[in-house]
Amino acid sequence: MAGQLRGAARILGSWRSYCSKGQQEKVSADFVEALKAVVGEPNVSTAGVVLEQHGHDESMHGCSPPDAVVWPQNVEQVSRLAALCYNHRIPIIPFGTGTGLEGGVNAIKGGICFNLTHMDRILDLNVDDFSVTVEPGVTHKALNYYLRDTGLWFPVDPGADASLCGMAATGASGTNAVRYGTMLENVVNLEVVLADGQILHTAGRGRRFQKSSAGYNLTELFVGSEGTLGLITTATLRLHGIPEATIAAVCAFPSIQAAVDSTVQIIQSGLPVARIEFLDEVMVDACNKYSGLTNAVTPTLFLEFHGSQQALQEQVQRAEEIVQQNGSSHFAWSKDPEERSRLWTARHNAWYAALALRPGCKGYSTDVCVPISRLPEIMVQAKKDLKAFGLTGSLVGHVGDGNFHCILLVNSEDADEHHRATQFVKQLGRNALAMNGTCTGEHGIGLGKRQLLKEEIGPVGIEIMRQIKSVLDTKNLMNPGKVL
Amino acid sequence: MAGQLRGAARILGSWRSYCSKGQQEKVSADFVEALKAVVGEPNVSTAGVVLEQHGHDESMHGCSPPDAVVWPQNVEQVSRLAALCYNHRIPIIPFGTGTGLEGGVNAIKGGICFNLTHMDRILDLNVDDFSVTVEPGVTHKALNYYLRDTGLWFPVDPGADASLCGMAATGASGTNAVRYGTMLENVVNLEVVLADGQILHTAGRGRRFQKSSAGYNLTELFVGSEGTLGLITTATLRLHGIPEATIAAVCAFPSIQAAVDSTVQIIQSGLPVARIEFLDEVMVDACNKYSGLTNAVTPTLFLEFHGSQQALQEQVQRAEEIVQQNGSSHFAWSKDPEERSRLWTARHNAWYAALALRPGCKGYSTDVCVPISRLPEIMVQAKKDLKAFGLTGSLVGHVGDGNFHCILLVNSEDADEHHRATQFVKQLGRNALAMNGTCTGEHGIGLGKRQLLKEEIGPVGIEIMRQIKSVLDTKNLMNPGKVL
Repeated sequence: MAGQLRGAARILGSWRSYCSKGQQEKVSADFVEALKAVVGEPNVSTAGVVLEQHGHDESMHGCSPPDAVVWPQNVEQVSRLAALCYNHRIPIIPFGTGTGLEGGVNAIKGGICFNLTHMDRILDLNVDDFSVTVEPGVTHKALNYYLRDTGLWFPVDPGADASLCGMAATGASGTNAVRYGTMLENVVNLEVVLADGQILHTAGRGRRFQKSSAGYNLTELFVGSEGTLGLITTATLRLHGIPEATIAAVCAFPSIQAAVDSTVQIIQSGLPVARIEFLDEVMVDACNKYSGLTNAVTPTLFLEFHGSQQALQEQVQRAEEIVQQNGSSHFAWSKDPEERSRLWTARHNAWYAALALRPGCKGYSTDVCVPISRLPEIMVQAKKDLKAFGLTGSLVGHVGDGNFHCILLVNSEDADEHHRATQFVKQLGRNALAMNGTCTGEHGIGLGKRQLLKEEIGPVGIEIMRQIKSVLDTKNLMNPGKVL
Repeated sequence: MAGQLRGAARILGSWRSYCSKGQQEKVSADFVEALKAVVGEPNVSTAGVVLEQHGHDESMHGCSPPDAVVWPQNVEQVSRLAALCYNHRIPIIPFGTGTGLEGGVNAIKGGICFNLTHMDRILDLNVDDFSVTVEPGVTHKALNYYLRDTGLWFPVDPGADASLCGMAATGASGTNAVRYGTMLENVVNLEVVLADGQILHTAGRGRRFQKSSAGYNLTELFVGSEGTLGLITTATLRLHGIPEATIAAVCAFPSIQAAVDSTVQIIQSGLPVARIEFLDEVMVDACNKYSGLTNAVTPTLFLEFHGSQQALQEQVQRAEEIVQQNGSSHFAWSKDPEERSRLWTARHNAWYAALALRPGCKGYSTDVCVPISRLPEIMVQAKKDLKAFGLTGSLVGHVGDGNFHCILLVNSEDADEHHRATQFVKQLGRNALAMNGTCTGEHGIGLGKRQLLKEEIGPVGIEIMRQIKSVLDTKNLMNPGKVL
């Protein structure tokens, strides 16, 4: 019954609308009592509205509610709950803030959703060692607020105020990655509860070194594993010094090619740019309308530089020279916080401006990543494909590392449009693969890109991934149906 | 017989002296003929002197020669040779330049040594995308020579002119890691021949993106796996822009604490230092004597800054302020190449200066990595332990990431001294573990640190590593007896 409902919903494209009924068929009342015995009655729910809330993320994938939601308070409870599920062969779905973009939390085989947000302590801050350990309820904004007087910050920022352990699970990155790296470069150690309840410290308990070559890299194996190998219950992170000063800049270009050429030259010249973001003319136009701006309606780069006052001045001068050589006619910059914020308004409001392109429609962001030199070609092709598929969409890119998003505006009641959007996403992924790229730079595989992953990695790699999964999750209970 | 010889050699501590006899017992003449059929007769050797050359690296571990050495010319030959070994259950040992420091190439169970240095092509250089692909015979110096006119370079430099695929296999880093990362951050994709001859592309064939969140991170799983999971036959690497200018600096401190405090403050202030190296007073004294220098015989930092002319000037000023606040009385710097080289003479010649401390003795470098704040404590303890064990040694550190080496001078004919050196290395590793550190920051586990790895990772992690190994290498043929 649940399966039929899900299938029907997918065909109709009406995600989230059908799933408020709850899906208790799969777990017995006795099992729910056993969950309550571990975490206490108030920390277990089978209420329809709660299950619905936990059955989807921000993606286009139809809601698939779990059979129950539990809120463990500590790692011991997570371990006991996992062991309980393991013994009863019931799926386990880790849940942070639900802000994922590829259906990573959707309980497509039912099971127990582990909402980890009650575990929200910040542990073991070591300012001199640039490290901190956080539980899954801590978001990147909460951590940076906590760090505000230490001179340090955590720069990985995927846009949404996601949980840091969730960001580790999806291999998140965002606008600062070109300077500070992604989660991969900034996770030092993870505490993970495996499907059977065993507790693993990927780099050994309590370890927080800057580098190691001791044994196989289990930490990076779990970064980006999307909850399919275990539940991340703490993440030890690398912190960075807060820059003395920041300069923001905006510049408009005659073509995508000119914007990308500027990006390559800026990076190649060794300018330590902190952010370098691209909006296409559709996105700039939408932002102008949404925020009452007067940016030139052409491909545009938004830059940010971090450093000392003196170093920044020079960096901006050199960047301006480079973009002017590439035909940029407008180059505005500022170090004043308010003016900086104004300059970046379009980038900051891009998501909402995109939504305003088709009021009442749902926004869906897909991402790919290609070698930087191929960006103009794939972006121009994406714009052609949008037209060919009869879709509304705009392009936003972390162009410094070849990663960009297409924000699609889709009428969720229109099954045909939903289907065309799905086909466009596949086509975009395949175009990226044909250019030596990847089908996802930062959103992950989740539900929708499993076929693309097969094409990307090839049969030998997929088989190794399967075998690794089977070693760590012998009964295939960890977030089943995702990634592989 | 071979095993007895090896055991005896280990007890006597007389490495390399006994093993020129060859160890052909384990492979039949027919098998050697089968190897020749794949690679041609001149590319197979069972000559004693050749086997001896391939039975050890630069470490203290006794020579264990393979049964034969093969020189494949391409990946197809590697694959066919591996399949041959797999079918006959014969161990496979990958060999690059033999410059490892933990016995990674020693054929402790005999088998076939795959010398990969004939595969030395540089493929697929993409200047605009900051990437290049290299075969195992390409060293980091050879690559940088090849790149000299492109404006790009590959910064990971472990000291020895090691092969880049070997550096990927051991998770190497070196002096530039504090700015540019280790091999982990600079390997984009690997082609790997598995034990059974299958060819894996860890990120998919031909892919060379800057980041990805597609599936499990197989690339990082192979980085640092020390040849125990497969033979790396190409590495796709991330390149960096050559800095416009370089400044080198040297400063002497009243104590290790003052040097480390300066390091922490320099990094925390966001100064993008490219190298920050430490020598203890024993090492400085040895370097003075070896190279006729007059450096103050106290703990000393060697710094290098990369950037634009103008930015560097400011960086050096700020670094000077910080080190002076920490009691440094001497701060010398230069941007002139010859003068820079002179300032860094002590650091560059440290290895040979250390050897000159006890002529005729063998130098053995061991490494650990701890949170930076614990560096003074562990370095002071290491100096005490050297005395307690009656050993001669000096400390050299990549202190920017908490990693340091102790260079021991050991009389290889003195079994007791050899034993004490081994015990000291274990003690240093355990001290690092007690301070939340790792038993190796960049040399790897190899033969000598397997027990320390167990203590570092704990039983759950070790069991997962074992299972991953068993999935990828079902017959335990890939470099057996290393890491686990």
